Amino acid sequence: MDDMGRSARRAATSLAMTDDAQRNAVLKASAAAIREATGVIIEANSRDMAAAKSRGLGAALLDRLMLDAERVEAMAGGIESIVSLRDPLGRVLEEIQRPNGLRIQRVSVPLGVIGIIYESRPNVTADAAALCVKSGNAVILRGGSESFHSSQAIYECMRQGLGKAGVDANAIQMVPTTDRAAVGYLLSSMAEWVDVVVPRGGKNLIQRVQDEARVPVIGHLEGICHVYLHKDADAVMARDIVLNAKMRRTGICGAAETLLVDRDAAERLLPDIIAALHEVGCEVRGDKTVVSLVAGTKLASEADWSTEYLDAILSVRVVDDIDKAIAHIGTYGSGHTESIVTNNPVAAEQFLREVDSAIVLQNASTQFADGGEFGMGAEIGIATGRIHARGPVGADQLTSYKYVVRGSGQVRP
Amino acid sequence: MDDMGRSARRAATSLAMTDDAQRNAVLKASAAAIREATGVIIEANSRDMAAAKSRGLGAALLDRLMLDAERVEAMAGGIESIVSLRDPLGRVLEEIQRPNGLRIQRVSVPLGVIGIIYESRPNVTADAAALCVKSGNAVILRGGSESFHSSQAIYECMRQGLGKAGVDANAIQMVPTTDRAAVGYLLSSMAEWVDVVVPRGGKNLIQRVQDEARVPVIGHLEGICHVYLHKDADAVMARDIVLNAKMRRTGICGAAETLLVDRDAAERLLPDIIAALHEVGCEVRGDKTVVSLVAGTKLASEADWSTEYLDAILSVRVVDDIDKAIAHIGTYGSGHTESIVTNNPVAAEQFLREVDSAIVLQNASTQFADGGEFGMGAEIGIATGRIHARGPVGADQLTSYKYVVRGSGQVRP
Repeated sequence: MDDMGRSARRAATSLAMTDDAQRNAVLKASAAAIREATGVIIEANSRDMAAAKSRGLGAALLDRLMLDAERVEAMAGGIESIVSLRDPLGRVLEEIQRPNGLRIQRVSVPLGVIGIIYESRPNVTADAAALCVKSGNAVILRGGSESFHSSQAIYECMRQGLGKAGVDANAIQMVPTTDRAAVGYLLSSMAEWVDVVVPRGGKNLIQRVQDEARVPVIGHLEGICHVYLHKDADAVMARDIVLNAKMRRTGICGAAETLLVDRDAAERLLPDIIAALHEVGCEVRGDKTVVSLVAGTKLASEADWSTEYLDAILSVRVVDDIDKAIAHIGTYGSGHTESIVTNNPVAAEQFLREVDSAIVLQNASTQFADGGEFGMGAEIGIATGRIHARGPVGADQLTSYKYVVRGSGQVRP
Repeated sequence: MDDMGRSARRAATSLAMTDDAQRNAVLKASAAAIREATGVIIEANSRDMAAAKSRGLGAALLDRLMLDAERVEAMAGGIESIVSLRDPLGRVLEEIQRPNGLRIQRVSVPLGVIGIIYESRPNVTADAAALCVKSGNAVILRGGSESFHSSQAIYECMRQGLGKAGVDANAIQMVPTTDRAAVGYLLSSMAEWVDVVVPRGGKNLIQRVQDEARVPVIGHLEGICHVYLHKDADAVMARDIVLNAKMRRTGICGAAETLLVDRDAAERLLPDIIAALHEVGCEVRGDKTVVSLVAGTKLASEADWSTEYLDAILSVRVVDDIDKAIAHIGTYGSGHTESIVTNNPVAAEQFLREVDSAIVLQNASTQFADGGEFGMGAEIGIATGRIHARGPVGADQLTSYKYVVRGSGQVRP
């Protein structure tokens, strides 16, 4: 592991001196290599899928893991969309002209070496490596054991891309083992080589990061996302947004897990919405009011309000007013993504201002919580921490900056 | 400690909802209270100074600790200069208009609760608390035992400011003990209550942070700052900058500790500069070339190149060329602040681009490494980490952001 770190540090130093065209050449060659290796990648993925099925993984996890030709093509296309992003490096973020004549610029630079720990989704291998290259960072990838073969196949393509573009191949490295001790080592003993670790995964990983991390972390908690139907919500819009937020894909972190409804609007809105959810196979777990209002809903337990189902299950609670809705989100939410549905602009602004989550939406589905949907190209994930980056983590979020000061002999009085 | 954390979290939530005028009212009242309490603060400081002298603290540390009427006035003035800064909260940092009609804004918000661990300089109490209030953050201060009485006296004034402006007094709290275990607890067990810790101190503290931190940290290493005299440096400018960078104040992190000189210019520049340094009482420790060139210089040991003297001592090394200078800084520097003196624009741009430090200067003293000199009002320190903030940490650097998304019923295809 230390050898990986040492060589990653060296690669980072040389990568920091490349220009955007060289880094884009890596990405174009990587995308081409992935396209060319579609068959190889799907074959590797089928081995992972077989193992996952035999171990009884749930439908949501299998969906995260699965690759077909369409998804491989999307992965290549995702890398190419990163090519077209503006250069995240050398951007002048701020200019300060001082009275003493000093000209100060704050200029974006790479972070250095980034460690990425992720679980079942193999496309993270491509997205994360591509974003790191675009932003001039070396990366050490540590994929989950479920996606080991898929990730290895994708990783080989990315290394080909580095080689074809004449960039140090150690700029992208992958921990060649599924041994869980490697995660601990990356989190605790690599501070000399790794500038930041981005963990992407479930509760076990989050707990490990909390317990063991000695390196800086860009935090990714689970996504316990809420849709709140304010009393002035449009009924059709409310139904469409709830169905999309919950059911478009249930296995992603931006999927809604809890629906909050104003008491004044519960009777008007809920029967229709829950009927539509039941129709597409979504289980509904409601509080007592909900259960008494709509037949076929189960009674939610306290644990439901803090559960990320990642599955076709939705918890539903009736709240007295917007303050209670905001308080519920503050108590049970994970600071990820929440949406209010309302035609009342005052209520909307209160929600957008007071809800302290990375992404707050008005009249739109929580499933827009995605770097691509924000115009960032791909993303590594949605950061729920407050330090360094929050919300979608794209190429810009993988940079630091330095101050460049040009003088003419100034000394400080 | 947990009670402090819990009440700080509550205060942070209410502080986040205040507007700039309310937060400025706190600062104005605090500055007035500090001015009024000048005698009390100096009396408290004299107790700290007496204890420090009896424990044999060095001149640089005593200078950091000492408060007189002028420094107390500067502290009050520093708080007032923060008042006049633009509101760091609610700033729209980025606007994204999506083809589907979603309007996305990235808006600055407070970090939440900030823990600040610092050592001897008591003015950090005022600067740090004021910057946290300005940026809507609650703060838990943990000053050094050397400055305990001074910091307590300043802290009481800040609390008065909160009270007078009608803001929750728990927005500023101070650990009421010099027990070192409190530092460990703040670093490791307060993750639920503290969003980020800013450690300011010497090697022991840095080591503790490295070993024990389980909460996010905005890193502050020591400042092993370099001045590099390129062969095309102007002799007078070189001398003035070296003298100022080393001797203006020797006890601050932006003071130069090592001077690098191109071999081609050593004979032209060094005798005059070292004579001037000797004249003002600065010890010079040079490599063999330097020692043979200038009488009265001592021979530097390997350890000198990585020593932050914080005193009137300068290590001096002759290098073959700019690449060797940049390599020396990469090996021995702490990523804080480095300056090149040259009239050669190509060399300057290479140095500014390739030296990977928080602040890189051309033809200016390293002692400009200061938030005030950058136009940020006061500062908590100069971050040498690469995550979240780098260089001077002022009010803007104590914010996070969230994405506010306004839609009209959009669902994701």
